[in-house]
Amino acid sequence: MASYQSYLENHQDRFLAELIEFLRIPSISALPERAEDVACAGQWVAQRLTAAGVENVEVLPTDGHPVVYGDWLHAPDRPTIMIYGHFDVQPVDPVELWTNPPFEPTLVGDRVYARGASDDKGNMLAPIVAVEALLKGEGEAPVNLKFCFEGQEEIGSPHIPDFMPQHSERFACDLAVSADGGQFSETEPILLMSLRGVCGLQIDVHGASSDLHSGLHGGRIQNPIHALTQILGSLRRADGRIAVEGFYDDVVELTSDERAAVALVPFDGDRYLKELGLEEAFGEPGYTNRERGWVRPTLEMNGIWGGFQEEGIKTVLPNSAHAKITCRLVADQDPARIIALLAEHIAQHAPPGVSVEVTPLSILGRPYSISADHWGNRAAAAVLKEMYGREPYQTRSGGSIPITGVFREQLGVDTISFGFGIEDENFHAPDEFFRLASFRKSQVAYCKLLAELGASAPPK
Amino acid sequence: MASYQSYLENHQDRFLAELIEFLRIPSISALPERAEDVACAGQWVAQRLTAAGVENVEVLPTDGHPVVYGDWLHAPDRPTIMIYGHFDVQPVDPVELWTNPPFEPTLVGDRVYARGASDDKGNMLAPIVAVEALLKGEGEAPVNLKFCFEGQEEIGSPHIPDFMPQHSERFACDLAVSADGGQFSETEPILLMSLRGVCGLQIDVHGASSDLHSGLHGGRIQNPIHALTQILGSLRRADGRIAVEGFYDDVVELTSDERAAVALVPFDGDRYLKELGLEEAFGEPGYTNRERGWVRPTLEMNGIWGGFQEEGIKTVLPNSAHAKITCRLVADQDPARIIALLAEHIAQHAPPGVSVEVTPLSILGRPYSISADHWGNRAAAAVLKEMYGREPYQTRSGGSIPITGVFREQLGVDTISFGFGIEDENFHAPDEFFRLASFRKSQVAYCKLLAELGASAPPK
Repeated sequence: MASYQSYLENHQDRFLAELIEFLRIPSISALPERAEDVACAGQWVAQRLTAAGVENVEVLPTDGHPVVYGDWLHAPDRPTIMIYGHFDVQPVDPVELWTNPPFEPTLVGDRVYARGASDDKGNMLAPIVAVEALLKGEGEAPVNLKFCFEGQEEIGSPHIPDFMPQHSERFACDLAVSADGGQFSETEPILLMSLRGVCGLQIDVHGASSDLHSGLHGGRIQNPIHALTQILGSLRRADGRIAVEGFYDDVVELTSDERAAVALVPFDGDRYLKELGLEEAFGEPGYTNRERGWVRPTLEMNGIWGGFQEEGIKTVLPNSAHAKITCRLVADQDPARIIALLAEHIAQHAPPGVSVEVTPLSILGRPYSISADHWGNRAAAAVLKEMYGREPYQTRSGGSIPITGVFREQLGVDTISFGFGIEDENFHAPDEFFRLASFRKSQVAYCKLLAELGASAPPK
Repeated sequence: MASYQSYLENHQDRFLAELIEFLRIPSISALPERAEDVACAGQWVAQRLTAAGVENVEVLPTDGHPVVYGDWLHAPDRPTIMIYGHFDVQPVDPVELWTNPPFEPTLVGDRVYARGASDDKGNMLAPIVAVEALLKGEGEAPVNLKFCFEGQEEIGSPHIPDFMPQHSERFACDLAVSADGGQFSETEPILLMSLRGVCGLQIDVHGASSDLHSGLHGGRIQNPIHALTQILGSLRRADGRIAVEGFYDDVVELTSDERAAVALVPFDGDRYLKELGLEEAFGEPGYTNRERGWVRPTLEMNGIWGGFQEEGIKTVLPNSAHAKITCRLVADQDPARIIALLAEHIAQHAPPGVSVEVTPLSILGRPYSISADHWGNRAAAAVLKEMYGREPYQTRSGGSIPITGVFREQLGVDTISFGFGIEDENFHAPDEFFRLASFRKSQVAYCKLLAELGASAPPK
């Protein structure tokens, strides 16, 4: 028997080697041809949980990528904490902008570069390692534990809403802790108050039955790219406000206190722009940059394509054009209603001479929020204050973790965020990396958090 | 010695085999990686001219794809006729829509399917074959002959304006005859009165230095696809009229007589739409479908791309978006001035938060027109009337052959169009084909045309 501290120290080299092994698996959930790699990552997680001393480990099928379950339930009268994370990753294109191949993890100083390093493989491996240190080092954990690791977070967890009700007993718990999150900086901790929801759709505009000669037919028929740009142009006003009727209907404006709390979080607008390589910010009038990113809904075009895209010239009048759009939502916007509003707007703004098809994307998440006074957040705040020497900021995220809404609706449990990514780590972009200092720190932090939650859970 | 008629009949199988060999060369001038194939097609043409009995054959370098020259100058006191055509072809994408591979010529009934079959390899091989029949069959031609075959027509002949002044003596002649053209149908001939000019540009919109997470950054910075669609949307009014200031300034409206001549050319609007697989036409208000396609300028988007374009979902905020645009121009629009007007419009409509770059495409052609009373057209009309049993329609083309403007400006000669493509032959589109009946008919027609031109040229 050893303290979790010394256990963690003694096995750190192995943990890093395991992280690198985990990062080699190209588990891109968005690409159908990578489905086996996602499954392989799930198997890796299951084996890693078992090796950590976790029991009843199972890879559970869904209608899409699998969910990995495991538990350790030997702490009578203690709360049951479910640790959440995801083993799928984002696509890697444009792959030519990566300094090193995205699935060949590369150590540079105290960082590991790879797709998924921060989001979320590094972050989700930390609590597994922490639990191993508790179970193998100290012989027990201070709480009952369940694990829920999914393989479809990056595509919006489309099959989790159907999956979870079938397993509600298995996943029953007192609190979910999401390892898919971050801290403000290496020295400043946070509590996460809200996440945006998400929904999306694809627009397909079809014209003639084949591509045509722009000299012979130009000017005589509708051009699908013209039509698409006209539709897309109508979705947003030039000043950045979304022009879809009803879009803002269910948005709950922040109170002045809440706006003040947002304003308390440091933000260097010049540095933000400099880091992105931009000259100026842009967004909805009447809101700060932080508010635009955290508590205002968005409509962003993720991709567009049609016609001739290679080097050179082809004087073609193309027969189709396409775009993918996703919206980030805030309380109390309903993703299904937003999709319906967008579809209606697009139908009303479809120009003559083409057919316009709207297909919802399989990404759907409700906005999520939680109070700073929640017992889980109070425990997290205590640990973070001890480790960082300061109170956490109360921040919000512009991102979406749809499963938090599913946990609340279908398991009746709240989720706190307890992850150690930092915003500069290029999630969803080329050259994603994770700080190894964060990897080590999060292992200790999880041991402390579980102890704190065990001690402070409200009586049932 | 034999008549050209019997010579053509006796060698028809070989001519078809040669056409198929010519069509196998993937001489796509728009693709840099195909430059050697374009050069190879030029060599093929040079050898074919020599085999036909043409003299002084040379492959002349330009700053881009080469020009092939040849002559036969043994008809003293007769006019010198320069036959023009091009051995380059359009790209083939979307290649998956072709029934057969585009560079594996396929005979189906009396048609040959291949990229370039009609535009322009079939059409340009016919006068070579005709001249062979005259020189080898009858021992002489009724006119002096020069040949000018280029390899950059499909990219707008960018290097011809610099090339031609260096070779103006070599190409000096009394009339150019373009084998890059067509007839109205298998039974109805035409005289071509005008061609549209052409110019184009690429728009590149750049945002952040890399792709970003649309949750973390969405709503806070400009989205390059949004910005691009806003710019593109501003170029055209919803009713189809181009919204660029000054765009129509130099357009010479047709006289009522000219509009009447256009209206005389048969047009079945329902059939036109049905053939394209469309429900409705679309174009500038106040003009007929024919006028929109023949004598009105256009602005067409040929291609657009940016962000995530694969199957699935990637919630990315992309860092760039791109579009290619070409305009068709009518008298007296100047391509360089139109590019300048577009660039100014785009600069004025560029949204904040992105940088917008405009690059002219290497395609530039002035509009061209010629009178029906021109001696060349009178000769062509006489041959066509004899062969088709009816007067040709006076038509116009929405396409562009920039070299006609170069011949007029730099050689001081007019160009008549004498080709045998038919509009349904899918130029620039999948499943391009050429009627073998047209191939045979055009060989005889060229023999007759040269005789008619020899007999009817005005005295010098």
